[in-house]
Amino acid sequence: MSTIVAVDTRDVRFPTSLSLDGSDAMNPDPDYSAAYVSIGTDAGDGLTGDAFVFTIGRGNDVEVAALDALRGHLLGRNVEELLADMGEASRLFMHDSQLRWLGPEKGVMHMAIGAVVNALWDLRAKRAGEPLWLHLSRLSPEELVSLVDFRYLTDALTPEEALEILRAAEPGREARIAEVLEIGYPAYTTTPGWLGYSDEKLSRLCREAVAAGFEQVKLKVGADLADDIRRFRIAREVLGAGFPIAMDANQRWGMQEAIDWVGALAEFDPAWIEEPTSPDDILGHAAIARGVAPIRVATGEHVQNRIVFKQMLQADALQVMQIDAARVGGVNENIANLLLAAKFGVPVCPHAGGVGLCEAVQHLSMFDFVAVSGSMDGRTIEFVDHLHEHFVTPAVVENGRYVTPTAPGAGTEMIAASLDEFEWKPERTDALA
Amino acid sequence: MSTIVAVDTRDVRFPTSLSLDGSDAMNPDPDYSAAYVSIGTDAGDGLTGDAFVFTIGRGNDVEVAALDALRGHLLGRNVEELLADMGEASRLFMHDSQLRWLGPEKGVMHMAIGAVVNALWDLRAKRAGEPLWLHLSRLSPEELVSLVDFRYLTDALTPEEALEILRAAEPGREARIAEVLEIGYPAYTTTPGWLGYSDEKLSRLCREAVAAGFEQVKLKVGADLADDIRRFRIAREVLGAGFPIAMDANQRWGMQEAIDWVGALAEFDPAWIEEPTSPDDILGHAAIARGVAPIRVATGEHVQNRIVFKQMLQADALQVMQIDAARVGGVNENIANLLLAAKFGVPVCPHAGGVGLCEAVQHLSMFDFVAVSGSMDGRTIEFVDHLHEHFVTPAVVENGRYVTPTAPGAGTEMIAASLDEFEWKPERTDALA
Repeated sequence: MSTIVAVDTRDVRFPTSLSLDGSDAMNPDPDYSAAYVSIGTDAGDGLTGDAFVFTIGRGNDVEVAALDALRGHLLGRNVEELLADMGEASRLFMHDSQLRWLGPEKGVMHMAIGAVVNALWDLRAKRAGEPLWLHLSRLSPEELVSLVDFRYLTDALTPEEALEILRAAEPGREARIAEVLEIGYPAYTTTPGWLGYSDEKLSRLCREAVAAGFEQVKLKVGADLADDIRRFRIAREVLGAGFPIAMDANQRWGMQEAIDWVGALAEFDPAWIEEPTSPDDILGHAAIARGVAPIRVATGEHVQNRIVFKQMLQADALQVMQIDAARVGGVNENIANLLLAAKFGVPVCPHAGGVGLCEAVQHLSMFDFVAVSGSMDGRTIEFVDHLHEHFVTPAVVENGRYVTPTAPGAGTEMIAASLDEFEWKPERTDALA
Repeated sequence: MSTIVAVDTRDVRFPTSLSLDGSDAMNPDPDYSAAYVSIGTDAGDGLTGDAFVFTIGRGNDVEVAALDALRGHLLGRNVEELLADMGEASRLFMHDSQLRWLGPEKGVMHMAIGAVVNALWDLRAKRAGEPLWLHLSRLSPEELVSLVDFRYLTDALTPEEALEILRAAEPGREARIAEVLEIGYPAYTTTPGWLGYSDEKLSRLCREAVAAGFEQVKLKVGADLADDIRRFRIAREVLGAGFPIAMDANQRWGMQEAIDWVGALAEFDPAWIEEPTSPDDILGHAAIARGVAPIRVATGEHVQNRIVFKQMLQADALQVMQIDAARVGGVNENIANLLLAAKFGVPVCPHAGGVGLCEAVQHLSMFDFVAVSGSMDGRTIEFVDHLHEHFVTPAVVENGRYVTPTAPGAGTEMIAASLDEFEWKPERTDALA
């Protein structure tokens, strides 16, 4: 038996705004950051549970404060009891009625809860000696269902329906485990498409994307229509007819503007339009989806919780679901999201990039393949090739596919030296200040 | 010309859980709290702009951290320029792309921005020597429209339509100013209905509510159906047939459960069912509204922003809109909410109670009466009689109506001695610890 004895939090920020990596129509100058939490025990095995909230700079300190506010729920707890019932562990934080007022189930507090839940999963997978995707893939359908909070979901998905989905996927699990270990998981790249890049750099990066084996690229759009047309034309010329090019407006538009703008780019045959409007606007997304069909609407990186995903699916507001590993209430809520997507027959193509999102979200897609949807068809995980060097077990993409991780844990532990080097303090006066 | 020289924040908590004041189906033991901000200038006039985020205890420190994160946007700014264009002032915080990631426009960060916006309005009204409701009521329709962020709204409300609504109300403004000064604004009371109270106390408080002149009371429901039936029967017996009794489930139910539970209480003729399910579930509210009609659905105290209110109205998901003074992005976003309600012909009956919500929200309803909807019909502001003594200009209810405030400001400034007495520190060991 062991006890949680430490909940260390860090404010880690990378000065990415200096190179315009990550610039889009709504986020011109992000400094990719992590509000980081590391849960330590007295087990003497050297294992910690590590995870983070991804932010883009200012306000990362607020996320750290939210992580700190959860410390009292963790310190002194019996580790084995906590990890043995991760549904109950999640409810410890989610159902704290006082903290719930700060959302409910959205924003700063919800993301912090998600990070703590993810850190506990990291610890549990490390103790099991398994990568998280494999660890989840070997849980019984009943245990998986016990992880989900079905409150507000049952009009779309009942526990019984969730069990059915998971049981239907059960017979093929071992074969799919072998398959994903062998062939990995499809990836697409956003690297060429940031708004801050020159046409020459866009063109060069598109060529490099094809050479690297990616089967889809994504362009940021929405700041200026003439620029978008020029950039899309360049990309289409470099990549050729039929090569999937997704586009991402990062919430820039209102409903009608989205339909008009996408219409003006339709000649370039976009694979999907991502975040055309506010992530809160379910009815707006539904109207846009009707207005731009057959171009598909993709969204989710800012969708706050399972309740909004539920409605997006009920309203046929999205045709591609983009879960995020660090936006919602952690692995548990993302299992709910995967089950919802399976129920409605919508493919999940996770959001990644930022800091550590690639590392985290690959586990969810691989688990989805093995134990939920049972398919990689039409599914692909975003990949952006930066900041991986700060992780103990960095995501690896080869020939346009994620290489299936085999190291124990959730992939979310950062290197101690990186935490030290990039820890942000209010008194810093360099580029991070 | 003057400059902002201080942004003082305080973590203030009242140990209300000790008396079960405020207990409901989702919030059994709230400690009503305020994350408080006071903006000081070098004008030498002794005026500060004061406001707060209301929370119910744990996590109030996270809200304070979010307020602190806005300090850099405020210190050193020219006060007159900031106050002269409050639309621009609001966008300063709202459109900070890095902070926006923490929402966007929801949760901890959004509420903190709302408090800072409200504090600036408090300062502006104090400088004008007017109560906020009157100050807003004397702005031109054009200036009022300039306060609203129409992004994501124009499919339901355009700036031109907003102007039309405000211009239509313009001729009657002065008469309605005189009217509201004379007769005040209708109030209803939630004091009798908390779940933690005994039947005897419920019965006594209902009698006292009638004696005090209130024309509606509200009962908390949703924890136990047999209890709800017993308590509603008591209230109905005391109050008599036809007396409006609203009920409030505080998000307790899923969609079908809400329809069934409300159906079981329909014989008691409830005035409305409030927060039957998640505030995020627009489609769920719409289904419930269809399922319980003609009983009306009321919601809004946890609605995160104007985008969700827009959809609730588009989907006919609510028949009573309950804005909250401290949940959304401040006065500016609540003007958007009032305009949306006017466009859709839905009455606004604000959420109040907590700490200082009565003080704040009365200004919005009175402004709505004078300059937006032009009506008090079917409208009433919640009133709960506690913690008013901590405010410099406490809300006053007489004969079941809010007495229209005449003191300059937004009503949101707390007494210094109260701030000192109830400031929470982690090391406190008394009931507040």
